[in-house]
Amino acid sequence: MITANAKAVHGADQPFTSTEIERRDLKAQDVLIEIKYAGICHSDIHSARGEWGPVQYPFVPGHEIAGIVSQVGPEVTKYAVGDRVGVGCMVDSCGKCAHCHDGEEQYCEEGMTGTYGSVDRYGQYTQGGYATHIVVTQDFVVRIPDALELDAAAPLLCAGITTYSPLRHWGAAPGKKIAVVGLGGLGHMAVKLAHAMGAEVTVLSQSLKKKEDGLKLGASHYYATSDEETFKTLANSFDLIINTVSAKIDINAYLSLLAVDGTLVNVGAPSEPLPVQVFSLIPKRRSFAGSSIGGIRETQEMLDFCAEHGIKPEIEVISADRIDEAWERVMASDVKYRFVIDISTL
Amino acid sequence: MITANAKAVHGADQPFTSTEIERRDLKAQDVLIEIKYAGICHSDIHSARGEWGPVQYPFVPGHEIAGIVSQVGPEVTKYAVGDRVGVGCMVDSCGKCAHCHDGEEQYCEEGMTGTYGSVDRYGQYTQGGYATHIVVTQDFVVRIPDALELDAAAPLLCAGITTYSPLRHWGAAPGKKIAVVGLGGLGHMAVKLAHAMGAEVTVLSQSLKKKEDGLKLGASHYYATSDEETFKTLANSFDLIINTVSAKIDINAYLSLLAVDGTLVNVGAPSEPLPVQVFSLIPKRRSFAGSSIGGIRETQEMLDFCAEHGIKPEIEVISADRIDEAWERVMASDVKYRFVIDISTL
Repeated sequence: MITANAKAVHGADQPFTSTEIERRDLKAQDVLIEIKYAGICHSDIHSARGEWGPVQYPFVPGHEIAGIVSQVGPEVTKYAVGDRVGVGCMVDSCGKCAHCHDGEEQYCEEGMTGTYGSVDRYGQYTQGGYATHIVVTQDFVVRIPDALELDAAAPLLCAGITTYSPLRHWGAAPGKKIAVVGLGGLGHMAVKLAHAMGAEVTVLSQSLKKKEDGLKLGASHYYATSDEETFKTLANSFDLIINTVSAKIDINAYLSLLAVDGTLVNVGAPSEPLPVQVFSLIPKRRSFAGSSIGGIRETQEMLDFCAEHGIKPEIEVISADRIDEAWERVMASDVKYRFVIDISTL
Repeated sequence: MITANAKAVHGADQPFTSTEIERRDLKAQDVLIEIKYAGICHSDIHSARGEWGPVQYPFVPGHEIAGIVSQVGPEVTKYAVGDRVGVGCMVDSCGKCAHCHDGEEQYCEEGMTGTYGSVDRYGQYTQGGYATHIVVTQDFVVRIPDALELDAAAPLLCAGITTYSPLRHWGAAPGKKIAVVGLGGLGHMAVKLAHAMGAEVTVLSQSLKKKEDGLKLGASHYYATSDEETFKTLANSFDLIINTVSAKIDINAYLSLLAVDGTLVNVGAPSEPLPVQVFSLIPKRRSFAGSSIGGIRETQEMLDFCAEHGIKPEIEVISADRIDEAWERVMASDVKYRFVIDISTL
């Protein structure tokens, strides 16, 4: 076993403490990564607090991981010691089913292995990236292009791919009108990515507080959803709406903003159901969909796209002793736009 | 003005009485149709009772119309006296917007003119097909192929196109697994059409009462939704689900039957909202959509497809004095599978 230092919570309402965790000894195809930076994702909080199902404590979150390869197994062909690499929300899958074959491991029929909170194929409970090291099979490691700094690259591994994938799947491109609901960690990436793909981007945010930011990030329009006029002005106008908000929203009001054949895609996951009026869908053949991360091949494509287009998340790098405080601020939407932990301070 | 005999209701809870209605004198592009048969659609009942918004009485329903051209305006080029023709749910649209241009008049930006319960571009309140004659501009008339009998053709104009259009739009074809929820007027057409398109069809009905029928209509499988095992057995298995039920269903249970990238399309329109758990959508990139009839071009394509494949609805032809009774039976789901009024008895 390989020992890593980590920050863990020992219960749903507990603060972080320093701990040691064990990573498996390198299998033939494994890569040992010295983690440099780990992003803080809202999912980390939901998961650690048991809000998305029971978890095992101590619990080490973190699925936005950027680091350097420090050791490789004997059959590793894709990476060498010193390579700049990343790991996102999954660390393994069956590798045999149709979805794995298609490079969409997130839909693996046996279920993919989550970076934390899963039991892997060796029977070990997975622990995430708020740690100094992680061991991952090479097929679930992606290369971070030289043009991307490691700290800024980290949030791309979840916030980046979670927004990139639906934008690609539903055809973000020049001539398309796309709205992004919520300007947080995911939302600000959706704006940057959709803009880089050539779409006309509108931000729908509760207030106009972040309007200047939104326009700088690449939006052409910015509307407050607290203003009822917004829903009249923008009725029937979007080809695609990416909803990054994980709280309950008035879903029918947002569906009414879709043009014929438009789709509203939730990447945020509210725990309460959203009551959909079927009449919001039928008369304009609208769709309400959900999307989850992306496959490994698409994650690499997204990193290369970001490098090529000079796209990186807006981040605030923090030391490891400030994770609890950062979580509080994430809960209060008080972050522009992603916290990244400097693992050297851990 | 042209006078037609008709059956009308004079209030939400009133029975039908015989009446006379006026149709406009033929404009240059108008066709006068002598109606031979009119199908009874569940929408007729919802509309006549004001359940989908206020209507004007006397109210003549009927948007599944089959008849013979008996007179044409001077600029009519598409039809001649004696032609076998049909009229569906719409009788006009702006003709200028992008959707009209694309042959999807149902999505007309100015709103299409409904066959009944609409105000047309001449300021007249439209009255439907439970009548001896109707006047319709030639672009909203379709040709009924010789291979289709007029009585059986009538229900194709709504029940046929309402199921044909989403099956085509979402790619019903060999290799696709499609479920049809509810085996009524729309459901039985969806089964026949999806089967003819080469898909593998499963009926999901409350009980197994109509199982033999369903298999005869073209389904390969038939399951009772009252049996909880059904939802376990069929989990993650359908590419497309056509929900024809207009009552409230447990939408998340049905969404759980969709494979990755699968879509559940409502063509039934429950008045209560359906509470969608976003977690029913996200992990498999599923969609929940709605669809409404189809354009005129697609309606003609559907009629030609039915003629070519020998598809026709199962109908029970009734005389005009039995409409009230037929409506009661539609409400009680006691029809196999569509009532058609013989207008010669009116």
